[in-house]
Amino acid sequence: MKQYLLGVDIGGTAIKIGKFDLFGELLEKWDIPTDRSDHGSRILKDIYEAVSARVSWDEVKGVGFGVPGPVTDNVALTCVNLGWGIVDVPATFRQFMTYEDVLVRASNDANVAATGEVFRGAAVGKKNVVMFTLGTGVGGGVVVDGKLVDGKNGAAGELGHLVIDFTHKILCKCGKHGCLETVSSATGIVNLARIHLQSSSVASPLRSMTDFSAKRVLDLAKAGDVIALAAVDDAADYLGRAIAGVLLSLNPEVVLIGGGVSHAGPFFLDKVAAKAQEYSSPFAKDTPILGATLGNDAGMFGAAYLVR
Amino acid sequence: MKQYLLGVDIGGTAIKIGKFDLFGELLEKWDIPTDRSDHGSRILKDIYEAVSARVSWDEVKGVGFGVPGPVTDNVALTCVNLGWGIVDVPATFRQFMTYEDVLVRASNDANVAATGEVFRGAAVGKKNVVMFTLGTGVGGGVVVDGKLVDGKNGAAGELGHLVIDFTHKILCKCGKHGCLETVSSATGIVNLARIHLQSSSVASPLRSMTDFSAKRVLDLAKAGDVIALAAVDDAADYLGRAIAGVLLSLNPEVVLIGGGVSHAGPFFLDKVAAKAQEYSSPFAKDTPILGATLGNDAGMFGAAYLVR
Repeated sequence: MKQYLLGVDIGGTAIKIGKFDLFGELLEKWDIPTDRSDHGSRILKDIYEAVSARVSWDEVKGVGFGVPGPVTDNVALTCVNLGWGIVDVPATFRQFMTYEDVLVRASNDANVAATGEVFRGAAVGKKNVVMFTLGTGVGGGVVVDGKLVDGKNGAAGELGHLVIDFTHKILCKCGKHGCLETVSSATGIVNLARIHLQSSSVASPLRSMTDFSAKRVLDLAKAGDVIALAAVDDAADYLGRAIAGVLLSLNPEVVLIGGGVSHAGPFFLDKVAAKAQEYSSPFAKDTPILGATLGNDAGMFGAAYLVR
Repeated sequence: MKQYLLGVDIGGTAIKIGKFDLFGELLEKWDIPTDRSDHGSRILKDIYEAVSARVSWDEVKGVGFGVPGPVTDNVALTCVNLGWGIVDVPATFRQFMTYEDVLVRASNDANVAATGEVFRGAAVGKKNVVMFTLGTGVGGGVVVDGKLVDGKNGAAGELGHLVIDFTHKILCKCGKHGCLETVSSATGIVNLARIHLQSSSVASPLRSMTDFSAKRVLDLAKAGDVIALAAVDDAADYLGRAIAGVLLSLNPEVVLIGGGVSHAGPFFLDKVAAKAQEYSSPFAKDTPILGATLGNDAGMFGAAYLVR
């Protein structure tokens, strides 16, 4: 009897495998290392074998994959961190897994985090959701009518590369200037703090540190440090601009903020919500801006959602 | 036998009614005046009677409405130009039209223009489309997976109010500054030309005109007038910013530009495409930016598409 969903989040270092019931309850999870040798050609076979050792495929309704690169129609177009070029994930996985009645689907890892939150996180019951994940970079995911939007080239949800400042000087690793990722990620908050340190002479504990984290900036901002507060206000303003854009385009039921930066909680999210409202006014009013709740497991949940 | 679709585009002055076959071929169209008296309470009855005089309801599969205001789940939330408050369009229309097997649906008039182009215009066969209509203002529509996105409060596709310049001084009638509508609509192109006339002393035929149209600015730009060209380049740049945002969020198959400004053709659209590419690079590459083809009938076609 089909009673399990598998959600697999393939990262450059480790692969997270989750066994779920059909309602998205996580029953068991484990990691295996990512073997990037030979252009990552053993990765899907390793996953097949790791699952086979623990779960009977007869009982699996489907297996979903989140992969670190653009995906369209379940085909990964390129995953630099895995060594993959174009990989048709279902076709390749079915070379090992011969159960024809098991669904196999794949999408981008950052995108599926959004469906994870729809499945069992902060957006349960919602069908129209946009999620921003603020980590080292900024990832995104867009869910419309309960379905993840991949886009023509798998480039939907590239919210970290929305240009939110057309005069900004910070170069993004994508080659553009003014991308959201350069200012509202953890790295971006540090960038903004350094800019404020340089352009002002106000005292701040940050001045004596050769290196500091976004968490340090957020904590100091909460404590009232003027420099840190200016950086956090800017980061919230920029994120508010990007959110306003998706509110006016899609008018979703909820916007979720995940990743390390979101742990700053209402102190940060309330600033973001005020700016999103300001830049989208008077349309798309009162859209809740909420913290995501699944943390690093969101991708695994979202991959399972693909085959629910 | 069910062999017709009806598409009704309700404007503040006139109501356009189209009779289509089931494949979206327009068979007949006619107008009736909009009676805004008594809070527009006779509008839907007038439409019912106008249709009944020409078409047997037995032969109608469905009737779709495009209405000038936000709509969600077929309920118009407010239409100032019709005098409407909250109007449940199917429930109200069914008070007159008692054929239960006729589908009745409604959506926003600017939004349905996008589905019109999907039905029989420049985006036939596409399922993921974003359309900008550049008229006196800027309207928009978003189609995902073949379905029009209304949004939680009917505010999806409010692309004219995307803020594309956070330092701009032009006040939009929505109350914000820097909205796309203030710079890339017909009105916006005139605004930009006036700004360039004031900030420069370069000679231009525009200087001697007390009043001029966007078409005049576009024609002069094509002829090489420096002031006009600067205004058109700016309008294209701003529209490119807005398009880049939707490319990075949704990565659609095609972006359509409709409305009077789009009649400037490749001269304008090529500039827009170059800017959209620049601001979305290296993601969402090579998305075609095409002119819409249905003109003022797009809303009627799109309304019919709702009940196809």
